[in-house]
Amino acid sequence: MSILPIVQILGFLLILLSFLMTLPVNLLMFGETSDWLAFVKSASVCFVIGVVALSVSGRRKHALKQRQMFMLTVSAWVIIPLFSSLPLLLSGMNLTITDAFFESISGVTTTGSTVLTGLDSMPDDILLWRSLMQWMGGIGIIGMAVAILPFLRIGGMRLFATESSEWSEKVVPRTNSLARSLVGVYLGITLACLLSYWLLGMTLFEALNHALTTVSTGGYSTSDSSMGQFESLGILLVATVFMAIGGMPFFLFVRFIHGQRQPLFRDQQVRFFLVLLVAVAAMLTVYRVVNDHADPFFTFIHALFNVTSVVTTTGFASTDYSMWGPFAVVIFLFITFVGGCSGSTAGGMKIFRFQLSMLLLREQVRRLLHPHAVFARNYNGRVIGDDIVASSVAFSFIFLATLAVVTAMLGALGLDLVTSFSGAVTALTNVGPGLGDIIGPAGNFQSLPDAAKWVLMATMILGRLELLSVFVMLSPDFWRS
Amino acid sequence: MSILPIVQILGFLLILLSFLMTLPVNLLMFGETSDWLAFVKSASVCFVIGVVALSVSGRRKHALKQRQMFMLTVSAWVIIPLFSSLPLLLSGMNLTITDAFFESISGVTTTGSTVLTGLDSMPDDILLWRSLMQWMGGIGIIGMAVAILPFLRIGGMRLFATESSEWSEKVVPRTNSLARSLVGVYLGITLACLLSYWLLGMTLFEALNHALTTVSTGGYSTSDSSMGQFESLGILLVATVFMAIGGMPFFLFVRFIHGQRQPLFRDQQVRFFLVLLVAVAAMLTVYRVVNDHADPFFTFIHALFNVTSVVTTTGFASTDYSMWGPFAVVIFLFITFVGGCSGSTAGGMKIFRFQLSMLLLREQVRRLLHPHAVFARNYNGRVIGDDIVASSVAFSFIFLATLAVVTAMLGALGLDLVTSFSGAVTALTNVGPGLGDIIGPAGNFQSLPDAAKWVLMATMILGRLELLSVFVMLSPDFWRS
Repeated sequence: MSILPIVQILGFLLILLSFLMTLPVNLLMFGETSDWLAFVKSASVCFVIGVVALSVSGRRKHALKQRQMFMLTVSAWVIIPLFSSLPLLLSGMNLTITDAFFESISGVTTTGSTVLTGLDSMPDDILLWRSLMQWMGGIGIIGMAVAILPFLRIGGMRLFATESSEWSEKVVPRTNSLARSLVGVYLGITLACLLSYWLLGMTLFEALNHALTTVSTGGYSTSDSSMGQFESLGILLVATVFMAIGGMPFFLFVRFIHGQRQPLFRDQQVRFFLVLLVAVAAMLTVYRVVNDHADPFFTFIHALFNVTSVVTTTGFASTDYSMWGPFAVVIFLFITFVGGCSGSTAGGMKIFRFQLSMLLLREQVRRLLHPHAVFARNYNGRVIGDDIVASSVAFSFIFLATLAVVTAMLGALGLDLVTSFSGAVTALTNVGPGLGDIIGPAGNFQSLPDAAKWVLMATMILGRLELLSVFVMLSPDFWRS
Repeated sequence: MSILPIVQILGFLLILLSFLMTLPVNLLMFGETSDWLAFVKSASVCFVIGVVALSVSGRRKHALKQRQMFMLTVSAWVIIPLFSSLPLLLSGMNLTITDAFFESISGVTTTGSTVLTGLDSMPDDILLWRSLMQWMGGIGIIGMAVAILPFLRIGGMRLFATESSEWSEKVVPRTNSLARSLVGVYLGITLACLLSYWLLGMTLFEALNHALTTVSTGGYSTSDSSMGQFESLGILLVATVFMAIGGMPFFLFVRFIHGQRQPLFRDQQVRFFLVLLVAVAAMLTVYRVVNDHADPFFTFIHALFNVTSVVTTTGFASTDYSMWGPFAVVIFLFITFVGGCSGSTAGGMKIFRFQLSMLLLREQVRRLLHPHAVFARNYNGRVIGDDIVASSVAFSFIFLATLAVVTAMLGALGLDLVTSFSGAVTALTNVGPGLGDIIGPAGNFQSLPDAAKWVLMATMILGRLELLSVFVMLSPDFWRS
């Protein structure tokens, strides 16, 4: 297996990254850019290494084979965060390598767990770079879900193709045009989000940062108190809408702007996703109104915002919802698993896998009563074969097994049960905050031991890459020629 | 659907129960039997109602249809604990109805969670009745796994039949002889356990009680400090061996005494089960030796005992293992899920389901690399069809979904996250102790609100009946004629 095509693409990605790194300096020309040299240095390093990689690998366009795609996927999601951490390291923040890398992996995987405190007084260029990492990670995962994972039969996007030819082997020209449309849609939604925030009273800088991290369902903020800093129900509502958009399949938006409006509104995954958000928020509202006599309207908006933030794996917080009582804590733990729709910027187990599981369960109950009957499985208007169910089930098992192993590792490193378990969940689902006093919505990951941070970094990447694309490389079969 | 056959069998079971209720009085004739009248009254009630049920339903032998089997299964596991709670209620213990019923459901389902304290000074007949309830529940679940669940396609025993004819519809005569062998084996193992305990220094009464609750993997003890009261490594080792036996498939023992020794030693489920016990105990020993400089031998025996106790869903404790550090807590939480082998007295998700999941996962990884290859699934020397995998997967989903709902309900009743979650797990897997200060190995279930106790009771029954046999009755299809 030749690694040259992989080096070529990585080189190309590094050059893109170097351009992105110059953005904080340019955007903040008139602001406080104390660390501009750090960004110029970092961008230069990325650019030079990218050019070297491109010249080593030659100009010829390569068609990637399946195993090369696996290797590219995994190495890109390690190397891009690695280089993205350069500006954090080179700036005068005195971050350890562990912390800088944690922050950039958490950023690029759009997790949003942070080791930094004092965000409110942090230089603007560092804040903007954190937001840009998440935004880049968001479009990265959408692109990967559409262009690479379907070829690898991972991630469930095959379920949502309109025609089987759409993901056939000769799709490259179509993929290119689809990629352009996706980037356009992503930019457009980000811009709409920015304007809405600005109109509702954020400064342009705040609006830019939060738009970048809302649409990418990343969750980095410019303040330690996250979205709570604005004390504005309007901003919470706008954030809720755009987080929900970030959790929906972006190729449906592409079809939407091309005039195909039905698929978006009729999509079973999208419908279930939206119903879930409202239903869970309503349940929490009733609980709080009954127990704490809280104001229903105010409570519902906050509940909807925080539920949407967790389900879409964004990780903004408007308030410390772990103070809402034990029932709320349990609910927030469970919805951390759910995740958004397939083909979105969200992580987690993904809505469609829960729907397939429910299909399977209903079928099994009916089979108990009618052992010899034959059942047709339908989802989103198509027949679901055993292979798709098996793939979804295998994902769920490896997800839970990974969760168990990571929790045990964090426990072995001395973290308590709630921190270990919720930390493992929040990293694997790319949500951001955990539960408990240390890593809960009001805390952060700074005080964890370095070893625990490295475990969580690996977990975030595993979660972002839908696990199987990494684990397949651990199989001896993979390395057989 | 006629309920007469169900009434007939329940009547028969109640008469059996009434005989069992006279045992504490008879066995303790020379001991302290302050509450003998309570047992005579309870036995009379069961006997009379049993006779009435038998005469109402007539003498004709009925062949049960599938739906009647479901109804019988569920109603038997509600009605037997209901009547079993009578001696607890009628004795002078001043138990509330909730607590008496909790104790008997926890007993008959062989869970072993208790609401009683001061066991050390409790009347002998009450202690013996608690042990007998568990022993009865143990043989009850073995019988059900062999005689009923295979017809309902639940519980995985079909996987382990030597010939498909073994579970065919005309198996009744064979089932009867198999049932006699199973009871014989169960009695024999209990006797061997009793003698071993006695020889190692327990009083005859202690040996009897603990033998009854060890072989049934129940976990009730005669002391608040459970097996810790004896401070004997020998007793811990014997208990470990007999708990492990209780967690193995009893029909393999029947075949063993009939001269077929290979199936027991070659069974993949049994091998994995035994390796798991030793491996987890070894891991915990290393952790404790490294962290606390604990004595390796002493630590390994205690670790093996407590791991076996949890994996076999017995629930004895030799010490408060939640003090062994966060890693141990996490490990004990996870092994609470595992459970013993199919066809044993143990609860939990069962070893074979984990093995099937691993098979599926390996297959899926290979399919990613070789999309068009065909894979044969083998387990225990036979080919595993998609239907068996689907049934195992459906169980896992409904197990996790039930766990989520029960945890949320307990949270809504005001219990903290660790108590809610570990309480839901321990009830659903019929283990016994949970985690945390309240229901941990050193605590008990007394202080929980009544509503939480009722939720846990329902959960224990659900878990004991492998969930699907209850949930199938919630399907509208079930009630269609």
